[in-house]
Amino acid sequence: MSVTENNTRRRNRTQLHLLDTPERHEIFVCGIDLGFGDLSFSGHPTSRTPHIDYLATNGRFFNQFYVTSPVCSPSRASLLTGRLQVRSGVYPGVFTPDNTLGLPRNETTIAHLFQGQGYRTMIIGKWHLGVGAKGEYLPTHFGFEEYLGVPYSHDMCPCRVCFPDGGSCFDNCWEQDVSCPLFSNTTILEQPVSLPTLSSRYLSRALGFISDAHHNNQSFFLYFPTHQIHHPQFASKKFHGRSARGRTGDALLELDWMVGEITLLLKKLRIDSSTVIWFASDNGPSLTRHERGGCAGPLRCGKGTTWEGGVRVPSFVYWPGKVRPGRTNGMVSALDVLPTLAALTNTSTANLTLDGVDVSPLLWAPDNKSPREMFPVYSESPTRGTEPFAVTDGKFKAHFYTRGSDLSDASNYDPMCPNSHPLTHHDPPLLFDIQQDPGERYNLANETLYQPVLQALIKWRNEHISNMTWMPPRTRSLDRRAQPCCTESSCNPFPTCCDCPSASYDPLEWLGVSKSKKKSHFHQPTN
Amino acid sequence: MSVTENNTRRRNRTQLHLLDTPERHEIFVCGIDLGFGDLSFSGHPTSRTPHIDYLATNGRFFNQFYVTSPVCSPSRASLLTGRLQVRSGVYPGVFTPDNTLGLPRNETTIAHLFQGQGYRTMIIGKWHLGVGAKGEYLPTHFGFEEYLGVPYSHDMCPCRVCFPDGGSCFDNCWEQDVSCPLFSNTTILEQPVSLPTLSSRYLSRALGFISDAHHNNQSFFLYFPTHQIHHPQFASKKFHGRSARGRTGDALLELDWMVGEITLLLKKLRIDSSTVIWFASDNGPSLTRHERGGCAGPLRCGKGTTWEGGVRVPSFVYWPGKVRPGRTNGMVSALDVLPTLAALTNTSTANLTLDGVDVSPLLWAPDNKSPREMFPVYSESPTRGTEPFAVTDGKFKAHFYTRGSDLSDASNYDPMCPNSHPLTHHDPPLLFDIQQDPGERYNLANETLYQPVLQALIKWRNEHISNMTWMPPRTRSLDRRAQPCCTESSCNPFPTCCDCPSASYDPLEWLGVSKSKKKSHFHQPTN
Repeated sequence: MSVTENNTRRRNRTQLHLLDTPERHEIFVCGIDLGFGDLSFSGHPTSRTPHIDYLATNGRFFNQFYVTSPVCSPSRASLLTGRLQVRSGVYPGVFTPDNTLGLPRNETTIAHLFQGQGYRTMIIGKWHLGVGAKGEYLPTHFGFEEYLGVPYSHDMCPCRVCFPDGGSCFDNCWEQDVSCPLFSNTTILEQPVSLPTLSSRYLSRALGFISDAHHNNQSFFLYFPTHQIHHPQFASKKFHGRSARGRTGDALLELDWMVGEITLLLKKLRIDSSTVIWFASDNGPSLTRHERGGCAGPLRCGKGTTWEGGVRVPSFVYWPGKVRPGRTNGMVSALDVLPTLAALTNTSTANLTLDGVDVSPLLWAPDNKSPREMFPVYSESPTRGTEPFAVTDGKFKAHFYTRGSDLSDASNYDPMCPNSHPLTHHDPPLLFDIQQDPGERYNLANETLYQPVLQALIKWRNEHISNMTWMPPRTRSLDRRAQPCCTESSCNPFPTCCDCPSASYDPLEWLGVSKSKKKSHFHQPTN
Repeated sequence: MSVTENNTRRRNRTQLHLLDTPERHEIFVCGIDLGFGDLSFSGHPTSRTPHIDYLATNGRFFNQFYVTSPVCSPSRASLLTGRLQVRSGVYPGVFTPDNTLGLPRNETTIAHLFQGQGYRTMIIGKWHLGVGAKGEYLPTHFGFEEYLGVPYSHDMCPCRVCFPDGGSCFDNCWEQDVSCPLFSNTTILEQPVSLPTLSSRYLSRALGFISDAHHNNQSFFLYFPTHQIHHPQFASKKFHGRSARGRTGDALLELDWMVGEITLLLKKLRIDSSTVIWFASDNGPSLTRHERGGCAGPLRCGKGTTWEGGVRVPSFVYWPGKVRPGRTNGMVSALDVLPTLAALTNTSTANLTLDGVDVSPLLWAPDNKSPREMFPVYSESPTRGTEPFAVTDGKFKAHFYTRGSDLSDASNYDPMCPNSHPLTHHDPPLLFDIQQDPGERYNLANETLYQPVLQALIKWRNEHISNMTWMPPRTRSLDRRAQPCCTESSCNPFPTCCDCPSASYDPLEWLGVSKSKKKSHFHQPTN
């Protein structure tokens, strides 16, 4: 509990404001591989994130925000649908460029809900919920009116230029695959994408989208999943070599700049108090990238694991004049974003089967008990019988299974983190007080005092398992020729034939003023 | 480098202000065992330190502030004298209640300097630089006009009551020693000290001291080394059971409250802009106390070790209207506090042999290179031949020797931290880029690229060793009867005969309005 955060009295007034606002805007910014300790705000000594820090300081920061998976695609599936990834089949691991499937077309996303309310909807950045052989899993099929972005991780392509003046990338990427495509809706604009200029173009488009919607008195929803700080890190001239934290610090500076510019525009347009900005990461730090891999701060292990470092990430809601600044210890999950945004906009979710809950009470009264009472932690590659690996009630966390991950550093001195730690069943489960011991160091499972807590967590997990519906896994249906390729039909030699660097761009298009008139360049698969 | 912190242009104006100010005030607040990740500001998820956060946010935060020792007494000796502990003999380890020695009487402290400038000087809290059989090492012999406090760690006495209504303490303390005395100057006011009310009394006295000095148009220097968050944690009714972080969180809340009240008074008296508040910790977290032991955040190991977690602590200068808010990566050490405060007050240090440098340029231009170019990291128990264990130029740190400590947790999964890691010579030294890898995980010593850096660090260390003067160690001259005892002469049975709970207190005295009229109760040693 905080000594300064009680603002229960504001609740009624805030809700009134909400109903009175004619235009409503929601922006969700999602960093990637950004660990709990990566922001300057969250304690990293050499990170500089002044604009994000400003929003975090002046918004409601969630001390305990969980993503549903320690890797990207399932985490994003849950974020956008409010449903656990096992319900939508987005597992094991992540979608790759050669995947023929994606998020099921019958899933309802946040964008669908807002679209149904007359919002303009757009996604800029990394989709990572499938492309499909005919582009049928691109985001324009999921409630997003517009898309600009690289649709998967930018290391799932050959690494070439990451820095200005042809500066090479600093990582091993997928050299045998097609170059990274930049999509506008379902059209490939360039392949390979130019990384050093990507953020500027993303930002221009975001600012254009916001301005255009506002000038047309339209509510809007912008989903802005950036590529920072995933490897290979890249940066434009303005940020290259600027951070004491090196390349990851440069990438963070550029991410921070984009957030700052968007915030500034909202203020200039005087729509900042009618715009909810929700910021989060998709999973914990990729420790296997060593000093470039992000930082979990005081949390244990990182990406790929079900320890706090893998699934607990920085997140906050900024809504000036509506949400009073402060932190909350109330537990929140990415699952809760859809129902919370729906509640804030009076959008019905009655026809959806959701795992998320409306946590907006934490925005008005941060010291209240969170509407999210329990959270199941699923592993990177879930299989029935072992999931969820862990469950938490916000204060205590019980690990029933643990497994290390090669994403958490083969040389990690913590034996629980690396891949060398095999799938291990814990009976009794390991039990940690994660409010007093966020680093999950001191197992309480054998202390008499904690047996009732442990039993309650076991019971809830059993009920959760009984009630969960699993869809068959969708991430392993692979066909190399399904990779997105800007060349119309079969090309040779594949995949380099897919390279088609862009000519010049119409700046008006980047500002969202004119629509793209290019026809689809999506290739037809040969089988 | 930061994108927002360049304020070089303000420098001249700020210095002008400084010279124009008739009254000048300096407050140094020193937390204990407070790790780099313990503040809410520095990323701890369940800590709540709103007032300290406010000062840190609105002051100059030092991302890289080093104490000279991973344990208390030597760290404080260096802080107060600007000289390494080996020069003053404050090693190995710390002073204990039965020590017949203390900081050498010929050392010049910050308090001496300010006293020479006509300041009123006071210390409230934990001195821990000796008492002596006749009180001859108490702080009133070191430039402090007044003292209120427990002169050593409050676990160096039997643990009795730590919480309101007689609530027991949660730790093993020194049950065979005299109870903890509360001193007013050289007089013992009560023994054992009442811990649950201690912070209130410290604060009342601090506020009284400030008010009184101000009303008499006197400049003042208040050194306020609190007992928080050292074990056994204690708290008053107002804070007991209030923090989600448990007892350590409660203790932090109370520390934060004291800082807030002092800040508020400065503002009310309109002397906030003529008062420099410098905040720091004395060493890293005592990990061996597990969930109660503090948090190093992303840094490696903790108290007792020469890894970053042991010696790098949160620190900032708050000086509203003078020091523009922001962070600096410029390296600073506790050694630099004396010369910096001396420079800010135009006090000469020409006759002193100092290891510290004036780092005030970082207050005006945080992106400049720090005047501190190198820092030697001495171990808990230095001996010639192995010291300094490590050296750093602020970006790179070379470990020549490492040794674990029982203060960094016998069950620590990092093999470098616990006592089981014996004294180990590293040749070549371990080399880390602590700006990009603050967790000291990725050794660069064998990479060709870094050989010049490594050689420079080796060379500087050799020169440092050649130039250093060691005084014989002073912390092991023990005599059980030298323990402070409120009973005048020999008493029986010792040590319980020393207990003399206070009667009521004169509230005016706590406000600093009247001076204590009690005669010295310091016992005369029997041998």
